[in-house]
Amino acid sequence: MKRLLDEPALRSLARGCAVLGTGGGGDPRIGLLLALQALDEIGPTELVDLDDLPGDALIMPCGMVGAPTVHIEKIENGGEGAVLREHLERVTGRAVAALMPAEIGGSNGLLPLTWAGRMGLPVVDADGMGRAFPLIPQVTMHLAGVDPNPGVMTDERGNVLVFRAISGAWMERLERSAAVEFGGAGAATEYTMTVEQAREATVRGTFTLAIRIGDALNTAVGDPVAALVAVTGGFPLMTGKVTDVERRTTKGFVRGSVIVEGLADDAGRLLRLEIQNENLVALEQGRVLASVPDLITVLDSESADAIPTERVRYGQRVTVIAMRCAPIWRSPFGLEMAGPRAFGYDFDYVPVEELAGAYA
Amino acid sequence: MKRLLDEPALRSLARGCAVLGTGGGGDPRIGLLLALQALDEIGPTELVDLDDLPGDALIMPCGMVGAPTVHIEKIENGGEGAVLREHLERVTGRAVAALMPAEIGGSNGLLPLTWAGRMGLPVVDADGMGRAFPLIPQVTMHLAGVDPNPGVMTDERGNVLVFRAISGAWMERLERSAAVEFGGAGAATEYTMTVEQAREATVRGTFTLAIRIGDALNTAVGDPVAALVAVTGGFPLMTGKVTDVERRTTKGFVRGSVIVEGLADDAGRLLRLEIQNENLVALEQGRVLASVPDLITVLDSESADAIPTERVRYGQRVTVIAMRCAPIWRSPFGLEMAGPRAFGYDFDYVPVEELAGAYA
Repeated sequence: MKRLLDEPALRSLARGCAVLGTGGGGDPRIGLLLALQALDEIGPTELVDLDDLPGDALIMPCGMVGAPTVHIEKIENGGEGAVLREHLERVTGRAVAALMPAEIGGSNGLLPLTWAGRMGLPVVDADGMGRAFPLIPQVTMHLAGVDPNPGVMTDERGNVLVFRAISGAWMERLERSAAVEFGGAGAATEYTMTVEQAREATVRGTFTLAIRIGDALNTAVGDPVAALVAVTGGFPLMTGKVTDVERRTTKGFVRGSVIVEGLADDAGRLLRLEIQNENLVALEQGRVLASVPDLITVLDSESADAIPTERVRYGQRVTVIAMRCAPIWRSPFGLEMAGPRAFGYDFDYVPVEELAGAYA
Repeated sequence: MKRLLDEPALRSLARGCAVLGTGGGGDPRIGLLLALQALDEIGPTELVDLDDLPGDALIMPCGMVGAPTVHIEKIENGGEGAVLREHLERVTGRAVAALMPAEIGGSNGLLPLTWAGRMGLPVVDADGMGRAFPLIPQVTMHLAGVDPNPGVMTDERGNVLVFRAISGAWMERLERSAAVEFGGAGAATEYTMTVEQAREATVRGTFTLAIRIGDALNTAVGDPVAALVAVTGGFPLMTGKVTDVERRTTKGFVRGSVIVEGLADDAGRLLRLEIQNENLVALEQGRVLASVPDLITVLDSESADAIPTERVRYGQRVTVIAMRCAPIWRSPFGLEMAGPRAFGYDFDYVPVEELAGAYA
């Protein structure tokens, strides 16, 4: 299966990536602008399935590392992917066959396809999360035992770092500190793998899913939130107004919290979202409504456009929805890497569909 | 000229490196212990002159980057040099022929010879400073236009970073942030060059000088400070007691100041040293007695042993001396990189011998 990503596909993809970003991954509006510019200049990027590539071909997972708040103003130059590829090929001595987003969520779902297109390479219909997560080793490749090395990072100035880290956690520490030194964000690749590995080690079909989500929003008649819930099988948690936002950019992350005060049917309720780049937990009076690794997304109540954490602000009318994560994240290792306790919370993960049933 | 560095030579070298470290470069006592252990296990390292190596052979300048306060407790494992060499050779595709200290001062004068010996390589009788400086591009190789790339860093855990920085200043930023992430210090190489380049781009004979200084201290009869002044042509600034030390380890550096209250002939005088890893400036009532790039060293008044900045403490009886820097540092580019203004001071450099004459 091959598909050329034309303008309608890119526009749908951007809306879908925003939803799957659960608030993080960088503002997809910026990713869309870069993708449209590349489309205009060099034509569409090819989206391919992992089954259509030779098993020994090399996949370069990539994206931006850092704080989404920084990413709003510190924009890629579009050539970072080529620099990453050049150094990855030099270090591994092998040719990169296709790019893949480390995370489908946010701008990071769009950027690798732009980079790929500019190099005449395809992008594969898969990613390493099925959403966005803040930390480098929070990828399905890590769960599958793929070596994070070599990591490569670059910035818009042309600095390049090649990493050989002793663990995924050290890759995170070293890439994060470089991102901070770059001014808060940088382009990176790690967990390079063969197509054969990628077939087992990724969340597959996530480009197609993101485009389907965007298409559903674009063609929704009447209530786009309902259309989104239908296409994602998501659970609306609350509809209301943002009444408080606490947000700080620190050590390469955005951290903070958001309070949503219920309106209409939800009048009298208060929902609290806790954030580290992505929305991690939705709480109501200390009760967990949804948590990582399940997806929590803040939508504009009228358009159902997902609002990235760095754009949430007082007074917005929003609907908060939760969606099931890719099944691999519910495995013991998946929860160890990206469950509530991985983020310092002292409670066990309960799947969102069970939580929704418990409180329905 | 070749010389095998036996135990007496190493002990003299350590005392000399301490003096040339101007307070920085890491405590040479730790460097000496590592050197003696390597001597015991694998025999002496060979010290060679750059004229005795082929012009196209590759020199690897190296040492520790970070805060000397950290280095007291976070000690090398002795294998860092081999890791740096392995990755440097892989990246450049060329064999390293000899090691060289980036700076002769402090532990950083001893460590490269230990690394070299363990690899069966010689160390060259030269360094990149003729002293110690806090910043990566504050080396004579930078003044000579040698490319700082590729930089390589590693830690005692086995993490490795390879840098392609757009400038010496960016190499400094990126290596410093990695050093901080490593816990405050890391082993590094940059400004790799050929022997032919090194003949023009280094301060030559600094191992020999350091050993000569150590020998003078070891064989001094009566007043070792006088012996040190005689062998270095230095200028005693004041003899007194340390009455105040302000020191903090921050962002990969030690910063602070030291007050010395004059005793005996210097009774009634107050000398203030300002520190960034090394002693940068000696002031008396706002008057500059000596400044970078000239060397300022705090000596134990009895033994004339140099006291590193991280070991200076209240009550020590000390003599502060200043020494002429290598002439290249007095060039316009040398002063731009390492003169008082490079460290944020708002005054022009005056050579220590002129200052000493003015106030004599």
